Amino acid sequence: MAENKDVSITVVRRLPRYYKFLSNLKKNGVQKISSKEIANRMGLTASQIRQDLNCFGGFGQQGYGYNVEALSNEIASILHLNQNIDAILLGVGNLGKALANYMSAQSTGVSLIGLFDKNPELVESKGLGYNIMGLTELDEFCKRHKPKIAILCIPSDAAEKTVAKLSLLGITGIWNFSSLDIQESDELKVENMHLGNSLMTLGFKVHNNCSGSEED
Amino acid sequence: MAENKDVSITVVRRLPRYYKFLSNLKKNGVQKISSKEIANRMGLTASQIRQDLNCFGGFGQQGYGYNVEALSNEIASILHLNQNIDAILLGVGNLGKALANYMSAQSTGVSLIGLFDKNPELVESKGLGYNIMGLTELDEFCKRHKPKIAILCIPSDAAEKTVAKLSLLGITGIWNFSSLDIQESDELKVENMHLGNSLMTLGFKVHNNCSGSEED
Repeated sequence: MAENKDVSITVVRRLPRYYKFLSNLKKNGVQKISSKEIANRMGLTASQIRQDLNCFGGFGQQGYGYNVEALSNEIASILHLNQNIDAILLGVGNLGKALANYMSAQSTGVSLIGLFDKNPELVESKGLGYNIMGLTELDEFCKRHKPKIAILCIPSDAAEKTVAKLSLLGITGIWNFSSLDIQESDELKVENMHLGNSLMTLGFKVHNNCSGSEED
Repeated sequence: MAENKDVSITVVRRLPRYYKFLSNLKKNGVQKISSKEIANRMGLTASQIRQDLNCFGGFGQQGYGYNVEALSNEIASILHLNQNIDAILLGVGNLGKALANYMSAQSTGVSLIGLFDKNPELVESKGLGYNIMGLTELDEFCKRHKPKIAILCIPSDAAEKTVAKLSLLGITGIWNFSSLDIQESDELKVENMHLGNSLMTLGFKVHNNCSGSEED
Protein backbone atom coordinates (compact mmCIF):
# COMPACT_ATOMS: atom_id res chain seq x y z
CA MET A 1 0.00 0.00 0.00
CA ALA A 2 1.27 3.45 -0.88
CA GLU A 3 1.74 6.28 1.59
CA ASN A 4 -1.59 7.97 2.03
CA LYS A 5 -1.08 10.73 4.53
CA ASP A 6 -1.01 13.49 1.94
CA VAL A 7 -3.95 12.38 -0.14
CA SER A 8 -6.52 15.12 -0.67
CA ILE A 9 -9.57 14.96 1.52
CA THR A 10 -11.78 15.08 -1.58
CA VAL A 11 -10.30 11.74 -2.63
CA VAL A 12 -10.62 10.32 0.89
CA ARG A 13 -14.29 11.28 0.91
CA ARG A 14 -14.91 9.17 -2.17
CA LEU A 15 -13.31 6.04 -0.66
CA PRO A 16 -16.32 5.03 1.47
CA ARG A 17 -18.47 5.31 -1.66
CA TYR A 18 -16.09 3.04 -3.60
CA TYR A 19 -16.01 0.66 -0.67
CA LYS A 20 -19.79 0.40 -0.46
CA PHE A 21 -20.10 0.02 -4.22
CA LEU A 22 -17.47 -2.76 -4.31
CA SER A 23 -19.01 -4.51 -1.30
CA ASN A 24 -22.30 -4.69 -3.17
CA LEU A 25 -20.56 -6.10 -6.26
CA LYS A 26 -18.83 -8.72 -4.11
CA LYS A 27 -22.15 -9.68 -2.54
CA ASN A 28 -23.52 -10.21 -6.05
CA GLY A 29 -20.59 -12.42 -7.08
CA VAL A 30 -18.93 -9.91 -9.44
CA GLN A 31 -15.17 -10.58 -9.63
CA LYS A 32 -13.77 -7.84 -11.83
CA ILE A 33 -14.80 -4.42 -13.07
CA SER A 34 -13.35 -1.70 -15.31
CA SER A 35 -12.85 1.87 -14.19
CA LYS A 36 -15.28 2.87 -16.95
CA GLU A 37 -18.01 0.71 -15.49
CA ILE A 38 -17.37 1.96 -11.95
CA ALA A 39 -17.55 5.49 -13.35
CA ASN A 40 -20.86 4.92 -15.16
CA ARG A 41 -22.52 3.37 -12.18
CA MET A 42 -21.22 5.90 -9.66
CA GLY A 43 -21.71 9.06 -11.74
CA LEU A 44 -17.95 9.83 -11.85
CA THR A 45 -15.45 9.80 -14.72
CA ALA A 46 -13.16 6.86 -15.43
CA SER A 47 -10.08 9.05 -15.30
CA GLN A 48 -11.15 10.41 -11.90
CA ILE A 49 -11.40 6.86 -10.60
CA ARG A 50 -8.00 5.87 -11.98
CA GLN A 51 -6.49 9.02 -10.48
CA ASP A 52 -8.13 8.42 -7.11
CA LEU A 53 -6.93 4.85 -6.84
CA ASN A 54 -3.47 5.74 -8.10
CA CYS A 55 -3.09 7.98 -5.05
CA PHE A 56 -2.90 4.80 -3.02
CA GLY A 57 -0.66 2.83 -5.36
CA GLY A 58 -3.17 1.78 -8.04
CA PHE A 59 -4.56 -1.72 -8.15
CA GLY A 60 -5.81 -1.99 -11.74
CA GLN A 61 -4.29 -4.02 -14.55
CA GLN A 62 -4.38 -2.60 -18.08
CA GLY A 63 -6.95 -4.47 -20.18
CA TYR A 64 -8.29 -6.42 -17.23
CA GLY A 65 -9.72 -3.82 -14.89
CA TYR A 66 -9.91 -4.13 -11.15
CA ASN A 67 -10.22 -7.30 -9.10
CA VAL A 68 -13.27 -6.47 -7.00
CA GLU A 69 -12.26 -8.35 -3.88
CA ALA A 70 -8.64 -7.16 -3.86
CA LEU A 71 -9.65 -3.53 -4.44
CA SER A 72 -12.34 -3.69 -1.79
CA ASN A 73 -9.85 -5.13 0.72
CA GLU A 74 -7.32 -2.45 -0.13
CA ILE A 75 -9.81 0.34 0.38
CA ALA A 76 -10.92 -1.19 3.69
CA SER A 77 -7.27 -1.24 4.71
CA ILE A 78 -6.70 2.38 3.62
CA LEU A 79 -9.76 3.42 5.61
CA HIS A 80 -8.49 1.33 8.57
CA LEU A 81 -11.86 -0.39 8.79
CA ASN A 82 -10.25 -3.36 10.52
CA GLN A 83 -8.54 -1.27 13.19
CA ASN A 84 -11.34 -0.33 15.48
CA ILE A 85 -11.63 3.14 17.06
CA ASP A 86 -13.68 3.45 20.26
CA ALA A 87 -16.26 6.21 20.46
CA ILE A 88 -18.66 7.77 22.93
CA LEU A 89 -21.94 9.53 22.18
CA LEU A 90 -23.23 12.57 24.04
CA GLY A 91 -26.94 13.41 23.99
CA VAL A 92 -29.24 10.41 23.70
CA GLY A 93 -32.34 11.96 22.11
CA ASN A 94 -33.92 10.65 18.92
CA LEU A 95 -30.87 11.54 16.86
CA GLY A 96 -28.45 9.96 19.33
CA LYS A 97 -30.51 6.78 19.38
CA ALA A 98 -30.68 6.67 15.59
CA LEU A 99 -26.87 6.97 15.38
CA ALA A 100 -26.32 4.32 18.07
CA ASN A 101 -28.60 1.90 16.19
CA TYR A 102 -26.89 2.74 12.92
CA MET A 103 -23.43 2.11 14.35
CA SER A 104 -24.47 -1.25 15.82
CA ALA A 105 -25.62 -2.38 12.39
CA GLN A 106 -22.80 -1.09 10.14
CA SER A 107 -19.05 -1.69 9.89
CA THR A 108 -17.50 1.73 9.83
CA GLY A 109 -14.35 1.02 11.85
CA VAL A 110 -15.80 2.97 14.79
CA SER A 111 -17.46 1.27 17.80
CA LEU A 112 -19.65 2.90 20.36
CA ILE A 113 -18.54 2.02 23.89
CA GLY A 114 -20.48 4.56 25.98
CA LEU A 115 -23.58 6.76 25.76
CA PHE A 116 -24.02 9.83 27.93
CA ASP A 117 -26.92 12.15 28.62
CA LYS A 118 -27.58 15.11 30.90
CA ASN A 119 -30.66 13.31 32.19
CA PRO A 120 -29.94 9.60 31.79
CA GLU A 121 -32.99 8.71 33.88
CA LEU A 122 -35.29 10.32 31.28
CA VAL A 123 -33.89 8.40 28.29
CA GLU A 124 -36.10 5.55 27.08
CA SER A 125 -33.30 3.10 26.30
CA LYS A 126 -35.33 -0.06 25.77
CA GLY A 127 -33.97 -2.00 22.81
CA LEU A 128 -30.94 0.27 22.48
CA GLY A 129 -28.50 -2.22 23.98
CA TYR A 130 -26.63 0.37 26.05
CA ASN A 131 -26.82 1.71 29.55
CA ILE A 132 -27.00 5.48 29.50
CA MET A 133 -24.55 7.22 31.82
CA GLY A 134 -24.76 10.70 33.29
CA LEU A 135 -22.37 13.42 32.14
CA THR A 136 -20.83 13.37 35.62
CA GLU A 137 -19.44 9.93 34.77
CA LEU A 138 -17.70 11.13 31.60
CA ASP A 139 -14.25 11.94 33.07
CA GLU A 140 -13.86 8.65 34.86
CA PHE A 141 -15.11 6.68 31.85
CA CYS A 142 -12.70 8.40 29.43
CA LYS A 143 -9.74 7.93 31.75
CA ARG A 144 -10.51 4.25 32.09
CA HIS A 145 -11.57 3.34 28.53
CA LYS A 146 -9.72 5.96 26.45
CA PRO A 147 -12.22 6.53 23.62
CA LYS A 148 -10.82 8.52 20.69
CA ILE A 149 -13.99 9.79 19.00
CA ALA A 150 -16.94 11.69 20.49
CA ILE A 151 -20.29 11.99 18.75
CA LEU A 152 -22.03 15.23 19.67
CA CYS A 153 -25.83 15.24 19.60
CA ILE A 154 -26.17 18.08 22.09
CA PRO A 155 -27.30 21.71 21.59
CA SER A 156 -24.66 24.11 20.29
CA ASP A 157 -24.49 26.17 23.49
CA ALA A 158 -23.53 23.06 25.46
CA ALA A 159 -21.21 21.85 22.69
CA GLU A 160 -18.67 24.67 22.96
CA LYS A 161 -17.62 23.89 26.54
CA THR A 162 -17.88 20.18 25.95
CA VAL A 163 -15.42 20.20 23.05
CA ALA A 164 -12.69 21.84 25.14
CA LYS A 165 -13.26 19.29 27.87
CA LEU A 166 -13.27 16.31 25.51
CA SER A 167 -9.89 17.35 24.09
CA LEU A 168 -8.43 17.28 27.59
CA LEU A 169 -9.90 13.81 28.05
CA GLY A 170 -7.99 12.45 25.06
CA ILE A 171 -10.66 12.72 22.35
CA THR A 172 -9.04 13.36 18.94
CA GLY A 173 -12.07 13.18 16.65
CA ILE A 174 -15.52 14.77 16.80
CA TRP A 175 -18.52 13.68 14.76
CA ASN A 176 -20.48 16.86 15.22
CA PHE A 177 -24.27 16.99 14.89
CA SER A 178 -24.61 20.13 17.00
CA SER A 179 -24.96 23.35 15.03
CA LEU A 180 -21.71 24.71 16.51
CA ASP A 181 -19.07 25.25 13.81
CA ILE A 182 -16.14 23.32 15.31
CA GLN A 183 -12.78 24.22 13.78
CA GLU A 184 -10.45 21.37 12.96
CA SER A 185 -6.92 21.47 14.37
CA ASP A 186 -3.83 19.27 14.50
CA GLU A 187 -5.09 17.78 17.74
CA LEU A 188 -8.77 17.50 16.90
CA LYS A 189 -10.28 16.14 13.69
CA VAL A 190 -13.87 17.08 12.95
CA GLU A 191 -16.68 15.98 10.68
CA ASN A 192 -19.43 18.57 10.87
CA MET A 193 -22.87 17.19 10.02
CA HIS A 194 -24.81 20.42 9.97
CA LEU A 195 -28.37 19.45 9.16
CA GLY A 196 -29.56 23.01 8.59
CA ASN A 197 -26.77 23.89 6.17
CA SER A 198 -27.51 20.86 4.07
CA LEU A 199 -31.25 21.51 4.03
CA MET A 200 -30.78 25.17 3.11
CA THR A 201 -28.42 24.14 0.30
CA LEU A 202 -31.05 21.73 -1.01
CA GLY A 203 -33.64 24.51 -0.85
CA PHE A 204 -31.34 26.76 -2.89
CA LYS A 205 -30.83 24.04 -5.51
CA VAL A 206 -34.57 23.39 -5.78
CA HIS A 207 -35.41 27.10 -6.05
CA ASN A 208 -32.67 27.87 -8.58
CA ASN A 209 -32.71 24.56 -10.44
CA CYS A 210 -28.95 24.25 -10.09
CA SER A 211 -26.89 21.21 -9.21
CA GLY A 212 -23.75 20.23 -7.45
CA SER A 213 -22.30 17.87 -4.88
CA GLU A 214 -19.19 17.71 -2.69
CA GLU A 215 -17.44 16.03 -5.59
CA ASP A 216 -17.59 19.06 -7.90
CA MET B 1 -29.49 41.26 -5.88
CA ALA B 2 -27.19 39.83 -8.54
CA GLU B 3 -27.96 36.81 -10.69
CA ASN B 4 -27.06 33.75 -8.72
CA LYS B 5 -27.92 30.77 -10.85
CA ASP B 6 -24.36 30.08 -11.92
CA VAL B 7 -22.69 30.45 -8.55
CA SER B 8 -20.52 27.48 -7.62
CA ILE B 9 -22.07 25.04 -5.20
CA THR B 10 -19.02 25.40 -2.94
CA VAL B 11 -19.95 29.04 -2.42
CA VAL B 12 -23.62 28.19 -1.93
CA ARG B 13 -22.65 25.68 0.76
CA ARG B 14 -20.94 28.44 2.74
CA LEU B 15 -23.99 30.73 2.69
CA PRO B 16 -25.90 28.94 5.49
CA ARG B 17 -22.76 29.22 7.62
CA TYR B 18 -22.53 32.99 6.96
CA TYR B 19 -26.23 33.29 7.66
CA LYS B 20 -25.99 31.53 11.01
CA PHE B 21 -22.89 33.50 11.95
CA LEU B 22 -24.56 36.83 11.08
CA SER B 23 -27.78 35.87 12.86
CA ASN B 24 -25.78 35.31 16.03
CA LEU B 25 -24.07 38.69 15.64
CA LYS B 26 -27.44 40.35 15.14
CA LYS B 27 -28.79 38.66 18.26
CA ASN B 28 -25.82 40.11 20.16
CA GLY B 29 -26.44 43.62 18.86
CA VAL B 30 -23.41 43.80 16.52
CA GLN B 31 -24.11 46.22 13.65
CA LYS B 32 -21.06 45.99 11.40
CA ILE B 33 -18.20 43.64 10.76
CA SER B 34 -15.15 43.48 8.50
CA SER B 35 -14.44 40.57 6.16
CA LYS B 36 -11.23 40.03 8.13
CA GLU B 37 -13.15 39.54 11.34
CA ILE B 38 -15.69 37.22 9.71
CA ALA B 39 -12.72 35.28 8.33
CA ASN B 40 -10.97 34.97 11.68
CA ARG B 41 -14.05 33.80 13.48
CA MET B 42 -15.17 31.36 10.79
CA GLY B 43 -11.79 29.87 9.93
CA LEU B 44 -11.85 31.19 6.35
CA THR B 45 -9.75 33.84 4.59
CA ALA B 46 -10.90 37.44 4.15
CA SER B 47 -10.38 37.29 0.39
CA GLN B 48 -12.50 34.12 0.21
CA ILE B 49 -15.31 35.93 1.97
CA ARG B 50 -15.07 38.98 -0.28
CA GLN B 51 -15.06 36.71 -3.32
CA ASP B 52 -18.03 34.69 -2.06
CA LEU B 53 -20.15 37.72 -1.38
CA ASN B 54 -19.14 39.39 -4.63
CA CYS B 55 -20.75 36.46 -6.47
CA PHE B 56 -24.06 37.86 -5.35
CA GLY B 57 -23.34 41.50 -5.96
CA GLY B 58 -21.17 42.37 -2.95
CA PHE B 59 -22.58 44.26 0.00
CA GLY B 60 -19.45 45.60 1.65
CA GLN B 61 -18.24 49.18 1.74
CA GLN B 62 -14.51 49.86 1.58
CA GLY B 63 -13.25 50.98 4.98
CA TYR B 64 -16.55 50.30 6.70
CA GLY B 65 -17.08 46.58 6.35
CA TYR B 66 -20.42 44.87 6.17
CA ASN B 67 -23.69 46.00 7.70
CA VAL B 68 -24.65 42.89 9.65
CA GLU B 69 -28.40 43.19 9.27
CA ALA B 70 -28.35 44.09 5.57
CA LEU B 71 -25.93 41.28 4.75
CA SER B 72 -27.91 38.77 6.78
CA ASN B 73 -31.13 39.79 5.01
CA GLU B 74 -29.47 39.52 1.62
CA ILE B 75 -28.17 36.04 2.33
CA ALA B 76 -31.61 34.99 3.60
CA SER B 77 -33.04 36.30 0.35
CA ILE B 78 -30.42 34.50 -1.77
CA LEU B 79 -31.19 31.27 0.08
CA HIS B 80 -34.94 31.96 -0.39
CA LEU B 81 -35.48 31.45 3.33
CA ASN B 82 -38.64 33.53 3.16
CA GLN B 83 -40.16 31.56 0.32
CA ASN B 84 -41.28 28.37 1.95
CA ILE B 85 -40.90 24.95 0.30
CA ASP B 86 -43.21 22.17 1.49
CA ALA B 87 -41.66 18.82 2.33
CA ILE B 88 -42.69 15.30 3.30
CA LEU B 89 -40.70 12.83 5.37
CA LEU B 90 -40.64 9.07 4.75
CA GLY B 91 -39.65 6.68 7.53
CA VAL B 92 -40.53 7.88 11.03
CA GLY B 93 -37.96 6.02 13.14
CA ASN B 94 -35.63 7.76 15.59
CA LEU B 95 -33.86 9.63 12.80
CA GLY B 96 -37.11 10.72 11.15
CA LYS B 97 -38.40 11.99 14.48
CA ALA B 98 -35.17 13.85 15.18
CA LEU B 99 -35.39 15.60 11.80
CA ALA B 100 -39.08 16.46 12.26
CA ASN B 101 -38.30 18.02 15.64
CA TYR B 102 -35.32 19.85 14.20
CA MET B 103 -37.36 21.29 11.34
CA SER B 104 -40.12 22.49 13.68
CA ALA B 105 -37.54 24.43 15.67
CA GLN B 106 -35.38 25.97 12.91
CA SER B 107 -36.00 28.35 10.01
CA THR B 108 -34.51 26.65 7.00
CA GLY B 109 -37.04 27.71 4.37
CA VAL B 110 -38.42 24.16 4.28
CA SER B 111 -41.60 23.10 6.14
CA LEU B 112 -42.70 19.59 6.88
CA ILE B 113 -46.33 19.05 5.89
CA GLY B 114 -46.62 15.24 6.04
CA LEU B 115 -44.90 12.25 7.67
CA PHE B 116 -45.22 8.75 6.26
CA ASP B 117 -44.25 5.33 7.53
CA LYS B 118 -44.67 1.74 6.32
CA ASN B 119 -46.23 0.92 9.71
CA PRO B 120 -47.79 4.15 10.96
CA GLU B 121 -49.57 2.28 13.76
CA LEU B 122 -46.22 1.27 15.28
CA VAL B 123 -44.79 4.80 15.43
CA GLU B 124 -44.79 6.38 18.87
CA SER B 125 -45.72 9.90 17.78
CA LYS B 126 -46.54 11.44 21.14
CA GLY B 127 -45.14 14.97 21.31
CA LEU B 128 -44.17 14.97 17.65
CA GLY B 129 -47.04 17.22 16.56
CA TYR B 130 -47.83 15.26 13.41
CA ASN B 131 -50.17 12.46 12.45
CA ILE B 132 -48.25 9.69 10.76
CA MET B 133 -49.75 8.46 7.49
CA GLY B 134 -49.28 5.12 5.77
CA LEU B 135 -47.33 4.89 2.52
CA THR B 136 -50.58 3.98 0.75
CA GLU B 137 -51.72 7.56 1.35
CA LEU B 138 -48.65 9.07 -0.30
CA ASP B 139 -50.02 9.44 -3.87
CA GLU B 140 -53.22 11.12 -2.85
CA PHE B 141 -51.41 13.42 -0.42
CA CYS B 142 -48.84 14.56 -3.00
CA LYS B 143 -51.50 15.19 -5.64
CA ARG B 144 -53.46 17.28 -3.23
CA HIS B 145 -50.70 19.20 -1.39
CA LYS B 146 -47.88 19.22 -3.98
CA PRO B 147 -44.82 19.00 -1.72
CA LYS B 148 -41.52 19.68 -3.52
CA ILE B 149 -38.98 18.05 -1.18
CA ALA B 150 -38.92 14.51 0.23
CA ILE B 151 -36.79 13.52 3.20
CA LEU B 152 -35.77 9.88 2.99
CA CYS B 153 -35.15 8.05 6.26
CA ILE B 154 -35.87 4.62 4.84
CA PRO B 155 -33.50 1.69 4.12
CA SER B 156 -31.58 1.87 0.83
CA ASP B 157 -33.36 -1.10 -0.76
CA ALA B 158 -36.71 0.65 -0.30
CA ALA B 159 -35.25 4.00 -1.35
CA GLU B 160 -34.47 3.07 -4.95
CA LYS B 161 -38.08 2.38 -5.96
CA THR B 162 -39.35 5.23 -3.84
CA VAL B 163 -37.20 7.84 -5.58
CA ALA B 164 -38.59 6.95 -9.01
CA LYS B 165 -42.11 7.17 -7.64
CA LEU B 166 -41.52 10.48 -5.87
CA SER B 167 -40.27 12.07 -9.08
CA LEU B 168 -43.53 11.12 -10.78
CA LEU B 169 -45.42 12.69 -7.87
CA GLY B 170 -43.77 16.07 -8.46
CA ILE B 171 -40.93 15.91 -5.93
CA THR B 172 -37.93 17.91 -7.19
CA GLY B 173 -35.59 17.68 -4.18
CA ILE B 174 -34.45 14.79 -2.00
CA TRP B 175 -32.77 15.11 1.39
CA ASN B 176 -31.36 11.64 1.46
CA PHE B 177 -30.46 9.86 4.70
CA SER B 178 -30.70 6.38 3.17
CA SER B 179 -27.38 4.86 2.16
CA LEU B 180 -28.47 4.73 -1.50
CA ASP B 181 -26.26 6.94 -3.69
CA ILE B 182 -28.90 9.04 -5.45
CA GLN B 183 -27.63 10.79 -8.59
CA GLU B 184 -28.66 14.36 -9.09
CA SER B 185 -30.34 15.33 -12.37
CA ASP B 186 -31.97 18.36 -13.98
CA GLU B 187 -35.31 17.20 -12.59
CA LEU B 188 -34.17 16.04 -9.18
CA LYS B 189 -31.86 17.87 -6.78
CA VAL B 190 -30.24 15.82 -4.05
CA GLU B 191 -28.41 16.36 -0.79
CA ASN B 192 -26.93 13.05 0.29
CA MET B 193 -26.36 12.79 4.05
CA HIS B 194 -24.48 9.51 4.13
CA LEU B 195 -23.74 8.88 7.79
CA GLY B 196 -21.37 5.99 7.14
CA ASN B 197 -19.25 7.92 4.63
CA SER B 198 -18.80 10.78 7.03
CA LEU B 199 -17.92 8.51 9.95
CA MET B 200 -15.40 6.54 7.85
CA THR B 201 -13.83 9.81 6.72
CA LEU B 202 -13.50 10.91 10.33
CA GLY B 203 -11.90 7.56 11.17
CA PHE B 204 -9.39 8.07 8.36
CA LYS B 205 -8.53 11.56 9.60
CA VAL B 206 -8.07 10.34 13.18
CA HIS B 207 -5.91 7.38 12.12
CA ASN B 208 -3.75 9.40 9.72
CA ASN B 209 -3.76 12.68 11.62
CA CYS B 210 -4.76 14.56 8.48
CA SER B 211 -7.31 17.32 8.10
CA GLY B 212 -9.76 18.70 5.63
CA SER B 213 -13.32 19.83 5.19
CA GLU B 214 -15.76 20.37 2.32
CA GLU B 215 -14.39 23.89 2.07
CA ASP B 216 -10.90 22.82 0.99
